[in-house]
Amino acid sequence: MNRIILTEQDRVSDGRFRLSDRRADHIRTVLKTEPGGSVKVGMLNGPIGTGEIVQIDPDAVELVSQFSDVIPQIRPVVDVICAVPRPKTMKKVLFTAAMMGVRRLMLVRANRTDKSYISSPLLTSSGWMPYLLEGLSQGGLTQLPEISVHPLFRPFIEDELPEMVSRSGYKLLLLPDPEITSPLTSVWRDCDHNHILVAVGPEGGWVPFELSLLEQQGFARFSLGPWTLRVESALTAVLGQIQVIATKSR
Amino acid sequence: MNRIILTEQDRVSDGRFRLSDRRADHIRTVLKTEPGGSVKVGMLNGPIGTGEIVQIDPDAVELVSQFSDVIPQIRPVVDVICAVPRPKTMKKVLFTAAMMGVRRLMLVRANRTDKSYISSPLLTSSGWMPYLLEGLSQGGLTQLPEISVHPLFRPFIEDELPEMVSRSGYKLLLLPDPEITSPLTSVWRDCDHNHILVAVGPEGGWVPFELSLLEQQGFARFSLGPWTLRVESALTAVLGQIQVIATKSR
Repeated sequence: MNRIILTEQDRVSDGRFRLSDRRADHIRTVLKTEPGGSVKVGMLNGPIGTGEIVQIDPDAVELVSQFSDVIPQIRPVVDVICAVPRPKTMKKVLFTAAMMGVRRLMLVRANRTDKSYISSPLLTSSGWMPYLLEGLSQGGLTQLPEISVHPLFRPFIEDELPEMVSRSGYKLLLLPDPEITSPLTSVWRDCDHNHILVAVGPEGGWVPFELSLLEQQGFARFSLGPWTLRVESALTAVLGQIQVIATKSR
Repeated sequence: MNRIILTEQDRVSDGRFRLSDRRADHIRTVLKTEPGGSVKVGMLNGPIGTGEIVQIDPDAVELVSQFSDVIPQIRPVVDVICAVPRPKTMKKVLFTAAMMGVRRLMLVRANRTDKSYISSPLLTSSGWMPYLLEGLSQGGLTQLPEISVHPLFRPFIEDELPEMVSRSGYKLLLLPDPEITSPLTSVWRDCDHNHILVAVGPEGGWVPFELSLLEQQGFARFSLGPWTLRVESALTAVLGQIQVIATKSR
């Protein structure tokens, strides 16, 4: 937890917050912060700041927070379409998306998505929330990614996506693909790096029908490198590569 | 398993291999390959090829392999110094290093490494081997990373490292650091990208003493992006960024 994420439910008065869950344990047993000491905090979907520990009980930690006017913003804005993976991987994808500041995560059922995965309790707001909060806390960010679930691939890609692309103004649509050899720089267009949409396939990859539908919508296939990565590692690598390329070309 | 990794112990005659562990289960239950079908294989530390399934028993799978003359090589060569993390993270680091073709992984005890971590059974060849093999299998690679364990940070960095740097010919020594804002491209030197050494810190980061010792040895600090990543994600991101920058500048 590089930043303790606070919510309105934790607030007991003006700047005072009371924590009694894993965040309290973390302050007591990992950070080992004593009363009078301070920890980095962030208001969920709000500014970052500093929390002074004012009280430590066996079952709760209380802190008084001062917030800056900084809300961490990740640029370029990246939205991600991700084939729903098995639940163990889904948790890592949720965590990674929040840790690395994905704005919107669209979970689609792909051909290689097992039918049972789409009805996992992880794909509900109470299911995904703990992993998102943990990711924000690790990444030091506060903005919760927006999650949506799309059980029908073809209507989502053919009907919803074009409207979304024009509304959001993405001009760069990226499709990492281990079958391709040319790198991200070969499909990168400098003018378009403020709004990016990335499609991350399932273990085993998209099937040819899905690839061709995505390409018809303007997705550009490229190689992350000379290996085949797991879903969560592919997400980490593509977000890392976007950062280094976008920062370079600024 | 994007590639079934074969070893000499699996060989029953010339090109014929018999598998009775997780690899056999994977062929039977995930790939669902029938006799006559084929799977991608690779000889450990050797060439890749294709294996034709010739027999499926309840307890074993036999295949006949044809090898190409291609041994997958990752360029640039990247060696990694990594602070020993807690065992759960250590497994992911081992897996990731193998998946992404790290040549050598040097595990050092950092100030923030808990004393118990360094005596984990994971830090023995029988402990790390399963995670390396799983990583190769995911990445589609065959070359086993070389692992070494260094329980004393200062003698390793001050005495062993300089000799190793001159022998290996690394000229680019990289230190990802969430406290820094300038990206990899700001420290990248095009001439030097064939041999790179990366130092990945512990959760909580290197302490100032360690940072200054690493900087004295020539490590250049840079930012992976505007977030703080977990150890295994930092490793994935830095290897991904090296790939895209090195490939671009070729």
